[in-house]
Amino acid sequence: MPSPIAFVSRMNAETEAVWKQALRAAMPQEDILSFSELTDEQRRAVDFAIVANPDPADIAALPGLTWIHSLWAGVERLVLELGDKAPPIVRLKDPELSRVMAEAVLAWTYYLQRDMPAYRENQQKALWQELDYRHPGEMTIGLLGLGALGTAAAERLTHAGFNVVGWSRSAKVIEGVETLTGDAGLQALLEKSDILVCLVPLTDATRGLLDAGRLAAMKQGAALINFARGAVIVADDLIAALDSGRLSHAVLDVFEQEPLPTASPFWQHPKVTVLPHISAPTSRESSARIVAGNVRAWRETGRLPETVDMIRGY
Amino acid sequence: MPSPIAFVSRMNAETEAVWKQALRAAMPQEDILSFSELTDEQRRAVDFAIVANPDPADIAALPGLTWIHSLWAGVERLVLELGDKAPPIVRLKDPELSRVMAEAVLAWTYYLQRDMPAYRENQQKALWQELDYRHPGEMTIGLLGLGALGTAAAERLTHAGFNVVGWSRSAKVIEGVETLTGDAGLQALLEKSDILVCLVPLTDATRGLLDAGRLAAMKQGAALINFARGAVIVADDLIAALDSGRLSHAVLDVFEQEPLPTASPFWQHPKVTVLPHISAPTSRESSARIVAGNVRAWRETGRLPETVDMIRGY
Repeated sequence: MPSPIAFVSRMNAETEAVWKQALRAAMPQEDILSFSELTDEQRRAVDFAIVANPDPADIAALPGLTWIHSLWAGVERLVLELGDKAPPIVRLKDPELSRVMAEAVLAWTYYLQRDMPAYRENQQKALWQELDYRHPGEMTIGLLGLGALGTAAAERLTHAGFNVVGWSRSAKVIEGVETLTGDAGLQALLEKSDILVCLVPLTDATRGLLDAGRLAAMKQGAALINFARGAVIVADDLIAALDSGRLSHAVLDVFEQEPLPTASPFWQHPKVTVLPHISAPTSRESSARIVAGNVRAWRETGRLPETVDMIRGY
Repeated sequence: MPSPIAFVSRMNAETEAVWKQALRAAMPQEDILSFSELTDEQRRAVDFAIVANPDPADIAALPGLTWIHSLWAGVERLVLELGDKAPPIVRLKDPELSRVMAEAVLAWTYYLQRDMPAYRENQQKALWQELDYRHPGEMTIGLLGLGALGTAAAERLTHAGFNVVGWSRSAKVIEGVETLTGDAGLQALLEKSDILVCLVPLTDATRGLLDAGRLAAMKQGAALINFARGAVIVADDLIAALDSGRLSHAVLDVFEQEPLPTASPFWQHPKVTVLPHISAPTSRESSARIVAGNVRAWRETGRLPETVDMIRGY
């Protein structure tokens, strides 16, 4: 009989219970226990854990871990906190997550293309004023990041008639999409995008990627959507770029500190749309199903899905 | 040599000049003159006019008209004002118009599905609160009207994963869409739609179609999008349905009086998004090209495109 699976999170008890229930429903043959429920003997025996922003001390207290599976797709905090001592990490790759994110990219691209923020402002002034319609074929959407999320977004946007240009660390080929890489590629992407969408993982290479210099390289009047991580953009530089009129609007779903503090200037900025990290909510059922499938394959074959590259950071 | 084409509108001189320029560019071989530019002799000789909300007296002053081509797709005012004395009317059928309208339907459907109005309200209160994500597959979008616009919208919505139900005067078959007709069909549509989208032409049969009784038949908490004509909905009944909580939100692009008067309660209603008739702006170039094609075919073959049924009203 295999040892129990440890569930290690920093969730409150109520949230953790709901997640454990979903995971147990997806793999009823497994014994899934919270870290706090494990006996000392079980802690020594556990060879696999499902984690969600775990306390590194808890992970260190499970010396037999051969791998861990993150419930989230973004693992920058896990990589940072566990460092060299991390067992192999598998991050969530959920096709449903890509679908929901691609849907969000299209939805908020339409929000900007169709001038919804400006019409909202005009409504408050009881101002009846038609703004110029922009045909998707006359607009270029720049995607920062061409992983599973960026690729799914590119497909939706091209189907909707937008021109799509994408940038990624390693060269990619996506049908109907101009793909760029390197510093020169990033510069070209910034210069030609009417809307720039951030979908890159947060790594040492992407932290502060959009700073004053890069924002200044953007097309006059361009807009920005950040569905990646807050720290990819230098917040003060973004506010300066909005205030100077360089950028027309920013849709921000992610922030360096979440929930976004009440004192943040983003809340009341007329050119900012604040969202509470909802672009691609993780579906418990869908996530639990994916994790269960990976656990089953490992039990049967001993093989793991692709693990996180700790140098690259995702 | 054919007689000149009359251009008869109630546009101001500047707007009319821009339109005439686009029409002349699309059919340089034709002589296109404004009604006011025509000599008495030319008025008697003119056998065809391009019209945009023309003064009925001007049309009556052109006794030789064999047909007229409307620059707009909506001809309810033309049908009403010209009545029995109308020459055969051809209305604009522009595939680009259907594309832009279908895009608008998808864009504002996402606006509602993704709770953009609620997140906007929360932002004003600096409130960080995730709302439940609704999967398109769990939502039903009801389309009132399955003409060229409704059909194009149905295609976009089903591709995006929404369930689509459509209602039309005459029975229609559209792949992947449940189509309904008649009073019982309308009742069923109202009961099952999470978002109801109005795309019907304004006729005697659709004026006041959505009144207190029909709004009360809608699903609790449903939302409404009106991209058709203001008079399809009884404005006071709509406000009552929003205030009672029966309906959660209305996106209104069309009104009985346009521009919407400053005193209208719609402007400041927290559950109403007011748009200045921009869901599907007519592209001058595209419209002029379509009209020019129809004129050319008529010159060559003497045949007209399908004309408006004056009883049905479109």
